[in-house]
Amino acid sequence: METYDYVKSVSTAAAASKSAMAGASTKTKNAVLARIAELLRTESERIIAANTLDLENADANGVPKPMLDRLKLDKKRIDGIADSLGELIMLEDPIGSGTRTTRPNGLVIEHIRVPLGVVAIIYEARPNVTVDAAALCIKTGNACVLRGGKEAIATNRVLTELMRRALCDNGLPENAVALIDNTTRESSTALMKMRGLVDLLVPRGGAGLIRSVVDNATVPVIETGAGNCHIYIDKTADHDIGVKVALNAKMSRPSVCNAIETMLVHESEAAEFLPKFTAALGDKTLEIRGCERTCAILGCKVAEESDWATEYDDYILAVKVVSGIDEAIAHINRYNTGHSESIITGNMANAERFRNEIDAAAVYVNASTRFTDGGEFGFGAELGISTQKLHARGPMGLDALTTGKYLVTGNGQVR
Amino acid sequence: METYDYVKSVSTAAAASKSAMAGASTKTKNAVLARIAELLRTESERIIAANTLDLENADANGVPKPMLDRLKLDKKRIDGIADSLGELIMLEDPIGSGTRTTRPNGLVIEHIRVPLGVVAIIYEARPNVTVDAAALCIKTGNACVLRGGKEAIATNRVLTELMRRALCDNGLPENAVALIDNTTRESSTALMKMRGLVDLLVPRGGAGLIRSVVDNATVPVIETGAGNCHIYIDKTADHDIGVKVALNAKMSRPSVCNAIETMLVHESEAAEFLPKFTAALGDKTLEIRGCERTCAILGCKVAEESDWATEYDDYILAVKVVSGIDEAIAHINRYNTGHSESIITGNMANAERFRNEIDAAAVYVNASTRFTDGGEFGFGAELGISTQKLHARGPMGLDALTTGKYLVTGNGQVR
Repeated sequence: METYDYVKSVSTAAAASKSAMAGASTKTKNAVLARIAELLRTESERIIAANTLDLENADANGVPKPMLDRLKLDKKRIDGIADSLGELIMLEDPIGSGTRTTRPNGLVIEHIRVPLGVVAIIYEARPNVTVDAAALCIKTGNACVLRGGKEAIATNRVLTELMRRALCDNGLPENAVALIDNTTRESSTALMKMRGLVDLLVPRGGAGLIRSVVDNATVPVIETGAGNCHIYIDKTADHDIGVKVALNAKMSRPSVCNAIETMLVHESEAAEFLPKFTAALGDKTLEIRGCERTCAILGCKVAEESDWATEYDDYILAVKVVSGIDEAIAHINRYNTGHSESIITGNMANAERFRNEIDAAAVYVNASTRFTDGGEFGFGAELGISTQKLHARGPMGLDALTTGKYLVTGNGQVR
Repeated sequence: METYDYVKSVSTAAAASKSAMAGASTKTKNAVLARIAELLRTESERIIAANTLDLENADANGVPKPMLDRLKLDKKRIDGIADSLGELIMLEDPIGSGTRTTRPNGLVIEHIRVPLGVVAIIYEARPNVTVDAAALCIKTGNACVLRGGKEAIATNRVLTELMRRALCDNGLPENAVALIDNTTRESSTALMKMRGLVDLLVPRGGAGLIRSVVDNATVPVIETGAGNCHIYIDKTADHDIGVKVALNAKMSRPSVCNAIETMLVHESEAAEFLPKFTAALGDKTLEIRGCERTCAILGCKVAEESDWATEYDDYILAVKVVSGIDEAIAHINRYNTGHSESIITGNMANAERFRNEIDAAAVYVNASTRFTDGGEFGFGAELGISTQKLHARGPMGLDALTTGKYLVTGNGQVR
């Protein structure tokens, strides 16, 4: 079968399960999640065997070490995934919640949350996403179509088989969790074109995937994960807090989207703050690319214009000395991707201006941008971090997988 | 100047006013709306003079009569627009509302409503939309770019001049209401491509405009107005209610998107109900295109497959006899555009199935689909009726013009 036809057949099968999923009770959906957790634990040896195969293939194909680590599942990680399903069970089911008003003509208008329908996710070699994403969809009564990376395909086959078994065991259609068992670029592009079958596509990946989606997608998309994040050290900043937060925001996990890429420092603080910051790095390696004034203080590599727009995802930090809050806000609003931005300041008027004028999903005062995360925000799991303004902005939890429906009841009203 | 560059310069000027608009207080924004209402009344003669020019040009160009009627502004209609601004002033300002939680680590996370930024609207020859759309944007702290139809350009010039004066009179930037003073197809297409400048595009128009947006737009879009709506007369329907509601839903204003295009009738009711329905038409003309069983009863024109998918927007109704609720739901979910669907029934179990299983923005029991409207739902004005699931579904009021922002305040928290 042609790739396009294959993707269409999988999407059509998922769409056929929409009605049963939308009608499932919270109790049934939670029973599916509990059953998945149980199967993950009892079948962990099979999962690990498939994952070992994936790891061997990936290693033989020269996949870099950090990616191998993200690909790996061991008993402890599988238990962690099963535990997070337990947390998801505890969260309130948004489906069916809503408001009810009676109009002067007697019409009763209810506005309730309903599932989107079919949610497709394109992602890379992290098999935990396979379970996290499917579980969020199950909890919200959505069907899902999963297109994971080729490195994880053997693991993903076992994981989806177990999730489909859990659906069947609870009287729900197994096609509500559907795996695209074809990891070519064509299958990814085909999925972007399933207009009428896919209600939402969430691409989780790098700039290349996002560009491909913008160019090709005809289905509704929520863009996630582009994070050119900043920290601004204001004139009145507590330097100890500034050093601690900036170090955490850059160094704790540079490959993630909520890590900072540029640090802006007020000109009155730079001469004292910048050496203090580099001293605090200790034996850790960080490449600094600075403006001329930064380089005059630190003797670092000179930043080019393109550095201000780059998401390094690496141990590299662009640094710029600015004249104050106006320049800081203008710089950030020019170069940021609408993800997470932080100000370190003791001046509450400046904090307020930063909160109001910075255009981003999350704006921090005296705290690390690394907190932009569904778990840290208290949403349980997350499907990704939206950097767009429509529908969902910031960490996407259960609510982002729902839409509204007006139910109007009358006794013959006409207009 | 090239059309694209012109549209870009207008959009850039509108975007430059975002920060001032986002920071405007509810009091100031309401003062602008009150001033617009005042100017509409005091300058009504100038508006009518410009509108007369538009009407003369349109008439000379052979514009059909119903469109001339939609284009026309007289003193009474201008007063109506001014009155609706008064109602908008009374509505609660969503900007700044939200929730606040404190996390175990002491971080305070606020989630507040903020403006989208720049909202663009492409619409046809209805000058009231110029004021309604701009007023909704002003109330929600958004800048707007208006691309109205060529037939209304003289009227729109005067209306936007008055609205810009009202902004200036209250210390806000006049470019927050921007008119694209170029009504070529190129200006419309250019506006669809203002990625990074336009945060939301709302096309209000027919299938041709929607297709052009799907093909060309690179900015976020909310599709509005496609309405292939149905009514289903169930086995236990009260025939008097069925006739009254079906007549209203089809005949009261067939050109609007919430009018019905197809009526489905249970096979046990058809022989009695259908003649009763046609008799109730009296001297009104309605072309019926029926399935074979309908034609056997009414002697009407035979419907083709394409009729089930057609939004006539005219005095034409497709009619089909169905075997029951299953066939009715399957037919509607196959052909509808996700707008408004109604069941007439005395069977509460069937009503519940219809409410749950029909995939549409608004689902009615024993009432006319014509109520799907921001005013009728109690939202004050509306920017259009969304038929998509992301962000806004159904009538779009003030909330649809906002997005969320997380404001996180700490005292040095790191992760």
